[in-house]
Formats: sequence, structure tokens, C-alpha cells
Amino acid sequence: MAHKFISKIEPGEPINDIYMIRDPILRSTTRGDLYIAMYLSDRSGQLNGRMWQATETIYKALPKPGFVHIQGRSELYQNNLQIIINNISVVDVSKVCIDDFLAKTKKDIGQMFEQLKEMVSRIQNPQLQVIVKAFLADEELMEKFRNAPGGMKLHHDYIGGLLEHVHNMLRVAVAILPLYPNVQEDLVLAGIFLHDIGKTEELSYDMAFSYTDSGQLIGHIVKSILMVNQKVDALRAKGTQIEQEIVDSLGHIILSHHGAYEFGSPKLPAMPEAFMVYYIDDLDAKLNLVELAIDEEQSDSNWTAWKNALQTRLYRKRIL
Amino acid sequence: MAHKFISKIEPGEPINDIYMIRDPILRSTTRGDLYIAMYLSDRSGQLNGRMWQATETIYKALPKPGFVHIQGRSELYQNNLQIIINNISVVDVSKVCIDDFLAKTKKDIGQMFEQLKEMVSRIQNPQLQVIVKAFLADEELMEKFRNAPGGMKLHHDYIGGLLEHVHNMLRVAVAILPLYPNVQEDLVLAGIFLHDIGKTEELSYDMAFSYTDSGQLIGHIVKSILMVNQKVDALRAKGTQIEQEIVDSLGHIILSHHGAYEFGSPKLPAMPEAFMVYYIDDLDAKLNLVELAIDEEQSDSNWTAWKNALQTRLYRKRIL
Amino acid sequence: MAHKFISKIEPGEPINDIYMIRDPILRSTTRGDLYIAMYLSDRSGQLNGRMWQATETIYKALPKPGFVHIQGRSELYQNNLQIIINNISVVDVSKVCIDDFLAKTKKDIGQMFEQLKEMVSRIQNPQLQVIVKAFLADEELMEKFRNAPGGMKLHHDYIGGLLEHVHNMLRVAVAILPLYPNVQEDLVLAGIFLHDIGKTEELSYDMAFSYTDSGQLIGHIVKSILMVNQKVDALRAKGTQIEQEIVDSLGHIILSHHGAYEFGSPKLPAMPEAFMVYYIDDLDAKLNLVELAIDEEQSDSNWTAWKNALQTRLYRKRIL
Amino acid sequence: MAHKFISKIEPGEPINDIYMIRDPILRSTTRGDLYIAMYLSDRSGQLNGRMWQATETIYKALPKPGFVHIQGRSELYQNNLQIIINNISVVDVSKVCIDDFLAKTKKDIGQMFEQLKEMVSRIQNPQLQVIVKAFLADEELMEKFRNAPGGMKLHHDYIGGLLEHVHNMLRVAVAILPLYPNVQEDLVLAGIFLHDIGKTEELSYDMAFSYTDSGQLIGHIVKSILMVNQKVDALRAKGTQIEQEIVDSLGHIILSHHGAYEFGSPKLPAMPEAFMVYYIDDLDAKLNLVELAIDEEQSDSNWTAWKNALQTRLYRKRIL
Amino acid sequence: MAHKFISKIEPGEPINDIYMIRDPILRSTTRGDLYIAMYLSDRSGQLNGRMWQATETIYKALPKPGFVHIQGRSELYQNNLQIIINNISVVDVSKVCIDDFLAKTKKDIGQMFEQLKEMVSRIQNPQLQVIVKAFLADEELMEKFRNAPGGMKLHHDYIGGLLEHVHNMLRVAVAILPLYPNVQEDLVLAGIFLHDIGKTEELSYDMAFSYTDSGQLIGHIVKSILMVNQKVDALRAKGTQIEQEIVDSLGHIILSHHGAYEFGSPKLPAMPEAFMVYYIDDLDAKLNLVELAIDEEQSDSNWTAWKNALQTRLYRKRIL
Amino acid sequence: MAHKFISKIEPGEPINDIYMIRDPILRSTTRGDLYIAMYLSDRSGQLNGRMWQATETIYKALPKPGFVHIQGRSELYQNNLQIIINNISVVDVSKVCIDDFLAKTKKDIGQMFEQLKEMVSRIQNPQLQVIVKAFLADEELMEKFRNAPGGMKLHHDYIGGLLEHVHNMLRVAVAILPLYPNVQEDLVLAGIFLHDIGKTEELSYDMAFSYTDSGQLIGHIVKSILMVNQKVDALRAKGTQIEQEIVDSLGHIILSHHGAYEFGSPKLPAMPEAFMVYYIDDLDAKLNLVELAIDEEQSDSNWTAWKNALQTRLYRKRIL
Repeated sequence: MAHKFISKIEPGEPINDIYMIRDPILRSTTRGDLYIAMYLSDRSGQLNGRMWQATETIYKALPKPGFVHIQGRSELYQNNLQIIINNISVVDVSKVCIDDFLAKTKKDIGQMFEQLKEMVSRIQNPQLQVIVKAFLADEELMEKFRNAPGGMKLHHDYIGGLLEHVHNMLRVAVAILPLYPNVQEDLVLAGIFLHDIGKTEELSYDMAFSYTDSGQLIGHIVKSILMVNQKVDALRAKGTQIEQEIVDSLGHIILSHHGAYEFGSPKLPAMPEAFMVYYIDDLDAKLNLVELAIDEEQSDSNWTAWKNALQTRLYRKRIL
Repeated sequence: MAHKFISKIEPGEPINDIYMIRDPILRSTTRGDLYIAMYLSDRSGQLNGRMWQATETIYKALPKPGFVHIQGRSELYQNNLQIIINNISVVDVSKVCIDDFLAKTKKDIGQMFEQLKEMVSRIQNPQLQVIVKAFLADEELMEKFRNAPGGMKLHHDYIGGLLEHVHNMLRVAVAILPLYPNVQEDLVLAGIFLHDIGKTEELSYDMAFSYTDSGQLIGHIVKSILMVNQKVDALRAKGTQIEQEIVDSLGHIILSHHGAYEFGSPKLPAMPEAFMVYYIDDLDAKLNLVELAIDEEQSDSNWTAWKNALQTRLYRKRIL
Repeated sequence: MAHKFISKIEPGEPINDIYMIRDPILRSTTRGDLYIAMYLSDRSGQLNGRMWQATETIYKALPKPGFVHIQGRSELYQNNLQIIINNISVVDVSKVCIDDFLAKTKKDIGQMFEQLKEMVSRIQNPQLQVIVKAFLADEELMEKFRNAPGGMKLHHDYIGGLLEHVHNMLRVAVAILPLYPNVQEDLVLAGIFLHDIGKTEELSYDMAFSYTDSGQLIGHIVKSILMVNQKVDALRAKGTQIEQEIVDSLGHIILSHHGAYEFGSPKLPAMPEAFMVYYIDDLDAKLNLVELAIDEEQSDSNWTAWKNALQTRLYRKRIL
Repeated sequence: MAHKFISKIEPGEPINDIYMIRDPILRSTTRGDLYIAMYLSDRSGQLNGRMWQATETIYKALPKPGFVHIQGRSELYQNNLQIIINNISVVDVSKVCIDDFLAKTKKDIGQMFEQLKEMVSRIQNPQLQVIVKAFLADEELMEKFRNAPGGMKLHHDYIGGLLEHVHNMLRVAVAILPLYPNVQEDLVLAGIFLHDIGKTEELSYDMAFSYTDSGQLIGHIVKSILMVNQKVDALRAKGTQIEQEIVDSLGHIILSHHGAYEFGSPKLPAMPEAFMVYYIDDLDAKLNLVELAIDEEQSDSNWTAWKNALQTRLYRKRIL
Repeated sequence: MAHKFISKIEPGEPINDIYMIRDPILRSTTRGDLYIAMYLSDRSGQLNGRMWQATETIYKALPKPGFVHIQGRSELYQNNLQIIINNISVVDVSKVCIDDFLAKTKKDIGQMFEQLKEMVSRIQNPQLQVIVKAFLADEELMEKFRNAPGGMKLHHDYIGGLLEHVHNMLRVAVAILPLYPNVQEDLVLAGIFLHDIGKTEELSYDMAFSYTDSGQLIGHIVKSILMVNQKVDALRAKGTQIEQEIVDSLGHIILSHHGAYEFGSPKLPAMPEAFMVYYIDDLDAKLNLVELAIDEEQSDSNWTAWKNALQTRLYRKRIL
Repeated sequence: MAHKFISKIEPGEPINDIYMIRDPILRSTTRGDLYIAMYLSDRSGQLNGRMWQATETIYKALPKPGFVHIQGRSELYQNNLQIIINNISVVDVSKVCIDDFLAKTKKDIGQMFEQLKEMVSRIQNPQLQVIVKAFLADEELMEKFRNAPGGMKLHHDYIGGLLEHVHNMLRVAVAILPLYPNVQEDLVLAGIFLHDIGKTEELSYDMAFSYTDSGQLIGHIVKSILMVNQKVDALRAKGTQIEQEIVDSLGHIILSHHGAYEFGSPKLPAMPEAFMVYYIDDLDAKLNLVELAIDEEQSDSNWTAWKNALQTRLYRKRIL
């Protein structure tokens, strides 16, 4: 049976489905009865849930967060839909169709990753090679890298989005590097591969997309350079010699890839390679954002709604 | 004999060479003697010139501006080099080695233009085709287009620079358009070809680079859209039907290609094609600017001087 | 019977009146029944409309957009008022009291236009004269000019608002030009007359105020200069000689009249006449905006609500 | 004999004229000889002066600052002109042609002041009337008001410039107030008269233009509102009743007349009258600034040099 | 009986309590019946109130604003809670527990004021001493100063908040002044004491917190300097001699204490003492704001909601 | 014999002293003679040096950079002072009075470091303790930390400046932490100690102050967090357990201590401790900057020159 998505629930419907539960709290009414308040969600949205006549036993059994099977009905309260729960039971993640909870790239993750490996294998410089290989050999990290979203919102905000973004950026770089012969190709390729690697730690995406505490405190830009330096330290500890200017150039490309202080880059691009990574990143991100914005709205209008990130509405009509 | 460049003249040298003259003025000293003040320049720079014991006849014969043969010597006055002129004679432009006066692209203009024509010939849409062909058929304009600089300073500031920039942008577009299948290719190609066409009227570059009055009052962005609309009006007057939404989309790409209000774009990009043209333009311009900045300084330092347009110094060292 | 304005409808009222319909869509419920969703509006606002038990025949008969007579009732759904429709029938625009749908200037359009013609007839320069006359002689355009709103929101956002704004600006210019003898009067008068002429194409205002596609892609500033150049091209084609520096100066005044890049001017004022048009425009717009803001709120407070465009609340009290 | 202006002195000229002296310092050379360093200036500029073989007696006699008669000659030192002084004697201010030292309005100060009085006499509101009259009756202040410059640089930077500016603003207001009937005329007239009254204390202009310490610490905007409040306190102390809301409205107009926080207004305009005073002030200041910028440069170019305050060059050519 | 706070009222509850009433209006329904609309509030929030079957007599008796005893019930209307009133009677302020209506500092006002007096008594400079004493001796003003809030929202927004803020700032100053021996201690202490004294006139806080008209027109920064100058004028009138540079320095500290034009300071800090007051003010305000933001949210999350004034969410977790 | 400082050299003086040499280049004149161009500097400034009649042997012997003894004389060339060298010989750094080349704190470095150790020893949290001790135990790093300047210009730009700044910040923190009991003291103390630790790698200061390549590419903010993470990695490798949230909180304080994106902080303060470190840093830096600016100018004026970093002139007069 198809999952009933949160965004499709209307008031007064019976509910009998699996949802993600978050932040359940046991409270008592003014009359002293216990009830549980919680958030129920899937990838389409989130609603408040209320289970009246609850007990502490029920509450203690609930995952915080996790998946639950809900029986109950939807209801309008103070103009917000909420779900009144009659029955709640814990569901193991193995029984869950995770696609109902996390949007996912439409492209083939395995294939993109193979092509990515092929593209970074063009790197000739032995020191950059060894750094890149150390990342590729870190299977635990690569597993995260293949699944992480590209962002929380705006662009590539789905499982595999980070890989899709990096993969496409590498394809753009491979296509245009021959047109700019003075740009050091190896730095661009390694820089693109690693520029957002910190998003694997900035974002959590096992049940839903959210920021980790560490991600919010430090941010993916600095996370990325920390991870590169940690890998380099580990390589050096094993006797591999890596020149500091290579590590610093790679670090500079990572730090400056947002292109402006107000977008969180603590350094502005100061190498041709840093400019190229910045522009390819921004181009690919914006075109993805624009495509998503145009696709997601169901309307006959030639224009999308106002997009705050772009400070304009978008012209949706294909004119050719 | 090699031209003595303005930037190489030291105090106390004899001068015997051709320079461009600008703004000559006939003045009298406090003692009543007539002299002529003028600017003398070539592509390396500009100096003040003074001809004492001048006559009105000499003054009247001078081009304003034009080329002159100067005999005299250099001298330091109030810490500025100036040229004291003993003899001055008008030189016809046909006798002048124009390369001494205007920097020029190192690439082959004819070849670039052929490749440009080949690339825009990929346009399939008949209405965009007819617009582009009307521009290509305007031989007087194309002659200007092949020779115009890409800018007054910063990037592509040399004869043929506009063509070099547009040519390279088209090559980038051709390389990456297959990676973005939802982007309307014909609009991108036509948009790139015409996005800076107004620079042919904004800048003058027969003897030196400068802005025209019209260029300063209106700017190349609006000049470009005016020229496109004028061509469309002419085509329509001859009976060719061109839909307004195609003209407006092309116009929008031109207007928004600086990407931000503060850089003189009166509209922000609102179509995927406009975003692509904006990013390709900025990428190509910045990489040219960075390359010129790194090349032009003669120093052993790993860093260039501070670049105001980029708000940073540039790291010149090739590390791989 | 007075029109029941959208903004005055409360939940649970019977509805029997004419409204503008926009974007009707034929949909089916989960049970397979057809219904029509639509927007219903007048000049006071807009509501969702729903016609259950609809048929394809009914749907096809609906104007998209246009005017309809609605019978039904208002109802609260998910905290939004909507109108449930029992009967819908098309109404010809000739039967509609258009004032219910479009706000209109309180001044006399005919009289303002006569005074405008009188004021621009002070222009002495023959070339500016011929340009202005060509516009005045374009009766189709002048009809639009007399009716266009001055904007979508903020200031002069009503039928005849553009004319009211231009008319008042001309009166201000006529009053203060004698105090600034170095300012070229003819340029100011022509510049004011034509500075917003592109709004006739940027905005549509037959049934409601909205932007045209062309207006959103190009904007009224560039539209205005395109229209001036088109008129000049037509005059020149007929043999009238018009100097380019006059066209460019007029164009410059139009392009720079928002006074700052961030307000969409691609050029900053660089002539005394451009400064004067910019200040008169801003003064008249802001005073109209302030007056509307003070008048529209019904409250006893000495202060209006926060006005985002002005970054302040306004002091409404008359203290003298 | 005409005064030899500082800006016209060339190297090697004999000097025999009156200049303003500032900051003389008695120093000793490495060999132990005493000399006096000083600045010498008139309204055209400033130079360093050096008197070798000086004595403490000579030094003590010098005004700090004041006027002196200089005999000596000009000389180039480290690429700066300086004046070598053989003889120096103090000159009483009564012997000085003050016009050589302070630029002055070309208009008739007495006539402007009479017209100003006539214009503010239109104020009907008795409380505003009494405030304005208290200022007009303060003869010491009015003497300063008639002579103060309108600014240190940019606009109206000459003796009588403040009066010229206020006088012209009042003329503009009188001309356009009938076109805006909802604007409270009396507030506008009183607001214009007093909006810059603090410049009489912010600037000093007895021998040259400079800021007072008090002016730099507090600024003319807050100085102006302080002066208005002080006058009101004095009137109230004498029993005149003045409502606080009138004082606050007048104060608000003064505080907000720069129109934006970044130009030093601590409050943004929040009354129609405040908007009108702001726009008239800015219009009159900018047109004066543009006119001065165009007039001051001696060149055949159609364009002035870059004007930082306006972020553009100015088009000087009169085209009609 | 404990007060039923507005924020705790749920739909369908009987109401029998005292609330503040504001802006009551007598209206008639479409059927012609009279009813009274009003706002009811306490310090936790505000709701609409409706009394159907009202009479003009009832209406006239109502305070505008003031306190009333309400009997009725809560009800949901168009998704907003409102209170339907059966009975309304005026309550004298003496019967009201004012703490239910105005939040209040948790610290001891009397004790803080004593400590404040002790700290400013360290001022040695006789002229600053006399100014400070004149303020301390103004018992009416000090009564306001002890009770005024520190702001309308953001920080110290409760009765006694201004005193708490000034008191803590003085404690910080006393603690760090010994570390900066070049800073003139007396100016810092006097500057802190008086920097926000205008808030006593900017804000009203007898029944609820709001801006006065005068406060909105002039602002507390300029109010403060006006009050200092008025006190100085009064002292001088009595023969006390106070040097202008002391008054101006104190005024400068007040004017510049927001540290930037965009925060309403018409002057930027230009004295060491002004920098110190600015930083202590900002530090104390932000730490109070952060503490309130962290405390006020009831949630298990490690992060607060987005704080617009700080452009971030706050990390609430105590990690040590 | 006292060192002759570069800033005190006048034209035409004999030179016989030690200077730092940088970037010597061997060139040939147009006549084919070899000469050496170089920069000569000490802490007071820098001049061009020219040695005519040079040989390759002389050139090769020169340090690049290093110290040399110069015999020659000063001369004015194109309005710039330069030094004409007759004799040049290499000087070992041990013979150099390094204070002539690098400005130094006036405070006692050893004493400040002891007090710093005492202050950070207040840290109670064992994990922060172990991190701080690991830094204190890194003698090589502490040696750099004691000598590094606090910046290249603006504030604390002298040997020992970093320590002086951190030491004073700790003193401020110790003084005010008792006033903010909710702030986690240990985090503030550790955060201050380490917030600028990366400046030891960002700046080089053995002969003169300059940025390292690594410093320019990465910046001291990110350098600092990299160093903290490296130390933590090393501690963990040895078995010490350190919770990630402590490392991230410390990292966050470092990243956000510039308080705004435009000053290079990639994260804005989001913890009370981060706000406190930011304000103490800015307060101490600005007061140092202001004090230096006031001290360095020798003038009788009450005001310093315009300070671009502060956007104001500073009032130098002590008024109490």
C-alpha cells in the first residue's frame, strides 16, 4: 500500500501508516490526565501528533527519534492539522521504505561514483594523488559521501545530492580545463572532489535532513579543511612527504569556494584554480536550484513564486 | 628602429620618435611667449609635452588628436617626466605602426571569428538564427566587433579582446551545454554572441582606448539591447516574423549578464540561460584578469600587489 | 446593488455578485468527482473559489481570465476563506462596473492630459520637440499612457496613476526650473514626460494590475529607452535629423532616474538634468506613498503600521 | 597689486605678499640652528613655509594662526613647493583683503536674507512663528548665519553658502508647496530655515574654513536640534507656551533631513514634511555640487574628472 | 487566585479576570446591533475582545486605555483566539497586581540604585561631578530611571531593565578601567550613567511597554543629549561654570554609543572613552539578549530558534 | 653609535649603517653596465638602494633577505629618496641590534607570560585543561607565541604584541566573568588563550613583519582551529578522551571571534562565551589602535589625521 504523505493528508482522514517521530514529550492536561505530544513527519512535511490517555510506559517505549506505526485520524486544531493517535507501535528501520522519508537523487549513485573516480584519476601530481586516494580508500567516509545531501534546502537537497553535485562539477571542469591551459588542472580536480567533503559531517540524513551540532558550530567549509589536514597528518605520520604549499593551496580553494565573505568564505579566491572551483560550484548549484524551483511548482503561470535566494521570480516558460 | 615606449623613457634622454598627440593647447607664458602644452602617449603610457617658442601656425597644424613625429628630450619637472619638444611634424596614420599604440590579442582574429561563426551556426531556432545572421551580415559592425577591446581595463583590454572573450565563452558553452540538458542551447549561444555587442559603440579604439560620450551616458549593456531591438525592428520591417518573447528573452540575458544591480545590471537573472551566460562571462573575465595580473608584474614575490577589483593579492607561484 | 467587496466577505455569507476569475483548473477528487478550482478577485483582494460537481462543459466555458457572476456562499477552510460556488456564468466586460476591479485616480484624466500637453509645449529645442510630438501623436500609446497605473504597489497604484505622477512632476519642474538657470529646461521636461513611458508596456491593467512577461524580463526603465529609440529611428527613417547626443542625453536621464544601482538604474545621474528628474520623481513618489499609507489605515493611533519600503512607521497626526 | 594666489605660484618665483599662517613651530637643525616651519595659505591652497636663521623672538611674535606679510622665494623640495622666507611681519586683519582668503557667495547676502525673512513670515502657526522670530531676533546668531559656509567641501563651501542654500531651498518650497496641499506648510518653512542652523557652530570661517572641536564631536544635525530646544526652553522660561509635539516635529525634520542612517541622520523621515525638506535639501545641494564641479575644471573634455561623492564623472557639454 | 495569563488561554475556557484594555471601539453589525471591539492584554500577550449587545453607556465608561474585569469565555474565530465578553467593569489601578502586566527585573532595584550611586561617586572631576549630581538630585527623573525598561524588545525589556543594564555596565567599567590607564575614567562613568537616560522619555511603561510619540520622533540617543544639555544650561544659569569641551565630550559619548551609523548613532566613536562605553554597552546588551533567548524557549533542542537580530540560532547546551 | 633610521634620512646625507636588504636584483643599464637594485629597510621604513658598477660576485654574496652594512649616500631621484651604495658587506644577525628592525612591546614578555599561565590555570574542566596544557608544553610554539606581533598594522603590531593582547584580554575576562555567572568561564579563558594562536604561523617576524604564504592562503582564524584540532588529535592518539562538543565549542569561539562575515569570521557567535570573547577582543584591539594612533602623531592639533579603519579622526585632547 502506498505511503500516505503528510502533505496530502486532509482534515478528518483516518490514518494508518508509518511516520517518523521526533521530540515526544509526556505532559499532563489541566485535569491531570497524561498525554504525549510529538512531531510526525515524512519527506513531504511534518505535523503535530497528540496521543491522549497516554501512559508513562507507552512514552518510554517511543524512539526519540525513530519510526512508528500510527493508527488514528487527522483533525484541524487552531487552524493547524494534527494527528490524534489511538495506537502507536515502534517500527524497526529495516521495515521502513526509507524513500518515503528522504528524497533521493534520480541518478545512479554507483555509476556517478565510478565516473568520479575515473575523473579524479586524471590527477598527475603524486602528492595530490596520494591525498585523493586516501579519501577514496576511506570506505566509511565514502559511504557517507555517496549518500549525503548537497544541502538542507536550496540545491541538491536529497540523498546522493552531494555526489551528484561533485560529479557534475568534475564533468564541467574536465570539459573546460583544456580552454584554460594556465590553470593547474590537478588542483582544480582535487579541489572540486574535496570542497564540500565536510558536508558529510555537517548534515545528518539517516531519517531526515538536519544539521549536526558540530555542523552548526563549525560549518562545512572549515569541516572540509579540517578533514583534509587530518588526512594529510595521518599520511605524514606514515612517512609520506607532502609539501605544505600543496596542502595550503588545496585548503585555500576549499576556504574560498563561496567566493565572498558574506557567504561564509573566510578567504577570497587568490589563485586561478580557486576562481574556477568557485564559479563551477556556483553555476552548478544555481542551475540545480533554478531547475528545482521551476519543476516543483504546479501552476500554469509563466513565472514561479518569488525566490528569496535569487531576489527574483523565475521565468518558467520554454520559449523555443 | 624599435619604438621608444613612453614607459621606458628616463629623464634626460634624447627623443626622436612617433607618438600620439591629444588635447594640444596654445598658451602664453607670464612673459608673453607662446608655447604649446599637449599629451603624448603610446600604449605603454602618457606624458606631458611642452613646445616652447611655438607659433599659432604650428599649433593649427597639429591633429587633435592624431600622430606626430617628435624631436626633443625628456626632462624631470616637479617630479613628473615631461618631453621638451624642439621639432614636431604631423604623421599620417598609414605611416604608423599601430601596434605600438594599441595592445592587441595574441590570438588569430580571423581564425577566432571563423570558429565563432561555426559555433553560432549550431543555433536551430529559425528566429534566433535570423537575428544572429543579420548581425553577422552587418560587415561594418563585424569589423568593429573583431577589433574592439573587451574593456578599458581589468580584462581583455586590447584590440581583439572582445572577440577573444566572446569566442572563449562560446567554447565554454559548447563544452558544458550537454551537461545541462534543460537549458535552451540556442538562447545561450545567441546570448553570448550578443551580450557585449554594445561595446563596439561604448568604446573607441582607433588610436587609444577611451569611452565614447554615448558609451558613458548609456553603457554597453543597454547599448547591446538597443542594437538587438534595432536589428529586430529592421527584420520585422522587411516582413520577417519574430516573436516578442524571443526578443525579450534575449534582451533579458543581455540585461542581467552582470548578475547584480551594483555591477550595472538593471535586471537579475531569471532564466536558466541567463544564469549560464552570467557565470560563463564572469568565469572567463576573471580568469583573464587573474592571468594578466600575474603576468604583468615583474617580481620574484610569490604574490602580486593588492588587486582592488578582487579585494586580495594573488598567489603567483605555480606549485605543481 | 453595491458590489460586495472581497475584503468585506465574512465566513458563512451568501454570495451573489460579479468577480474576476483567474487560472481556473479542472481537477478530480480522490473519489473521482470533477471540480473546478479558481481564483476570484476584485480590487479589494482575492479568494479561492471551488465549484464541486463541475463538468468539463462548464470548465471550457470559463474565461481565463475574465468576469463571472457567482452564486454560492463563503466558508472557512483551513483558516482561509473560500467561496463555494453553486452557479457560475460568464459576464461580458461591458456589463461590469470596472471601478469595482481597478482603483482609479481621483483627479480628472482629461484635464491632467491637457495640462501635460501645455507644459511640454514649452520645449523650445526643435529636435526634442519633434520627439515629444511623435509620442503625443501616437494615440494608441497615449490612450495607454492616460490609463496606466504608476506602479503595482507603493505609489500611484491606480488607473491614471502614471499620468497623475508625470503631470505632477511636470508641475514641480515648471515651478522650480526658474530657480536653477543652468539646468537645460527642455531636457528636464522631455525627460519627465518620457521617463516612465515603458510602464505602459511593463504593466497590464485591463482587469487587474499585473506585470507583463515582457515587463518582468526587461523592466520599465529599459522599456522606456527602447521606445524612445524606436520613435527616433522612425523619425530618422522619415528624414528628420536628430543628433545622437540629444537622444543619448534623454536616454541617460531615463536610465539614471532611479538614482542608484540597487533600485535598478544601470547608470548613475551624470548631468544636472538627470539629477533634477531623479529628485522630482522620488519626491513625488514618496509623498504619494506617504499620503496613501496615512490615509489607508483606519485607526486612532498617531502612527501607521511599519512601512517596509520606508523602514519606519509614519506619524499620522496633524499637529498644526 | 593683485594677490599672488598659492595655486599660481611656480618654483623659483620671488614672493612678496600676505598669507595666512598656521601652526608655526620653532625647531633646530642637526647643526643646532633655529628655524621656523609653518603653513602658509590663502583660499586657493596651502604650502609649507621655512624661515632659516630664525630666532625665538621672531617666533613668539607670530600669530597662531593669523596673517603675515612674507618676503622670500618659492622653491621645490622633495617635489613639493615650499616658500623660503627672508622676512616675516604680522599684518592686522583690518589690512587684509579677506576675499583672498575665503571664497564668498556671488549673490547678495543682504538681499537673500531679506527675502528669507519674507518667506518665513508666511508661517501662520503662532508657536512656530514665535520660535522662528526668536532666531531672527538673535542678531549675533543671524550674523553668523549670514556668513557661514554651507559646508567644508562638496557644496556651498563659501562665505554666505549656508544662507544661499537655505534661501534657495525656501524658494523651492514656496514654489511647490501649493502642489502638495496635504503637507503642513509652516513645518516645512520652519524646518528649512533651521535644518542646518548648527553649521554656525560646527564650522569656523574667520580666516579659513575648518571644523570646530564641538562641531566634530557633535555634528551640525544634533547641534541644530540642541539650538532649537535651547531657544524653546528660553521662550518657555519667559512664559510662552509651546506644545511639545511641535518642538518634536521640528526636531524630527532636522534629525531626519539627511534621509539615511549612513549620512548621519539618527532618524529616518516619518512625516510628509520631513520627506519634503530632505528632498529639497538634497536636490539643492547636489545641483550646486554638480554646477561647481562642472565650472571648476578647465578642460576641453566633455566630461569632468571622476567625482567620488557621486560615483561618476559628469557630462559637461551643453547639448541644446 | 492566580492571574490567568493571555498566553495560557485555550479555546473554550471561561474567563473571569483582570486585563488591560486598549483601543475600544463602538461598532454596529450589519443588522444594526451595537458591539464593542477592543484589545485585551497582560504581559504575556494580547487578544481581541468582543462584547456583543453593548450600549453606548458601557462604551463610554471604558478606560482608553486602562484595566477592566472581564467575565466571558474564549473562542476560536478565523483561527484566532478571541474573548467574548458578557460582563465588563472598570478596575482601579490600585487594585491591580501590576506585575501581571509588566515584566520586572529579578534584581533588587533599590540595591542596584545604591550601588550605582556609589560607583558614580568615584568621579573626581568637579564639573562632571556637578552634572551627575544634578541628575541624581532630580528625584522625579530618578524615579523614572529606576523603573524604565532597557528596551521594547531584544534586551532588558522589563521594569527596572534600564537600571539593571546601567548598573551592570558600571560594574564592568569599574572592573576593567584599571587595565586601561590612559582612558579617562570619569568620562566613562558619567557616560555610562547618562548614555540611555533618554529612554525615560522614549518609552512609556505605566501599563504596558510602548514608545511615546516624542520617543519615536526623536529617539533616545538624541533625547539623552538634549537632557544633558538642558541640565547643563540650568546649572550654568545658576552660575556653575562648566566647560563646553566637557559637555561636548559627554555628548559625543552618548551620540556614538551605538557604534555605527546604521544603528542610529549620528557620530562614530572618536575618543577612547567613547569606544569603551560602546563596547561595554554592546557586550552587556548582547549577553542579556542571549540569556533571555536561551531561557525563554521550552524545548529539548540544543539550539534555539533563529534569532533575527543575531543572524543565527543559539547553542543552548551547557557543555562543561 | 645610534642607528640612523630610514625615516630620518634626508637627501644628500652620507650613509654608513646596517640595514635589512630584500629582493636584490642584478640588472644591466642600457649601456651594458651591471648594477644591483634592492630594498633597504629598518623598522621605520624602506628605501630603494642602487649599487652601480656592481659585479656578479658581489650580487651572489648578498643575503636574500638579510642584513648588510652600507656605505654610500642618499639622493633624490624622481622625487623618491634612494640610497647610492659604494660599499656593501654582509652582517651576521648576531651583530645586529634587532630592536632597530622590529618594534617591540614596552611590557615585560616574561612577566606577561607567567601571568597568562596563572590565569589559564583557573580552568577547572579537565578536558579543556589538558588541551591548554598541551599548548603550554609545546615550548617551540610558546617561544613563537611570546614573540609574535598581534598584527601587521592597526593594533599590537610589534614583537610581543600577540602576547600583550592575549594577556590583557585574559585580565579583562577575569575581571568581568564574575558579573556574568551564566557564562562558562573555562571556555572563555581557553578561547581567549587560543583565539589567535594561528598568528604564530600567519606572520613572519624574524627580520621584519610580513605574511607567510600559508598565512595569506589560509588566514590566522582557520590556522588557529587547525592547530587546536591537531593538538586534540595528538592527545587522543595518546589515549586522552576529549569530547567532540568541547572541541567544537572551542573551535566555534575561534571561528566567530571577528564577529561578522565581512571581517573574515565564517561563523557568527552563537554561544554566550563566543560573544564575550568577540567583544573583549574588539575592545582591547580598538583601544590599543586608538592609543597608538593618538601617540604616533606629532602635532599640536586636537585631532589626529583621518583613520580609515575607524572612519573618523580621533580627538586627542585630554579634557579632564
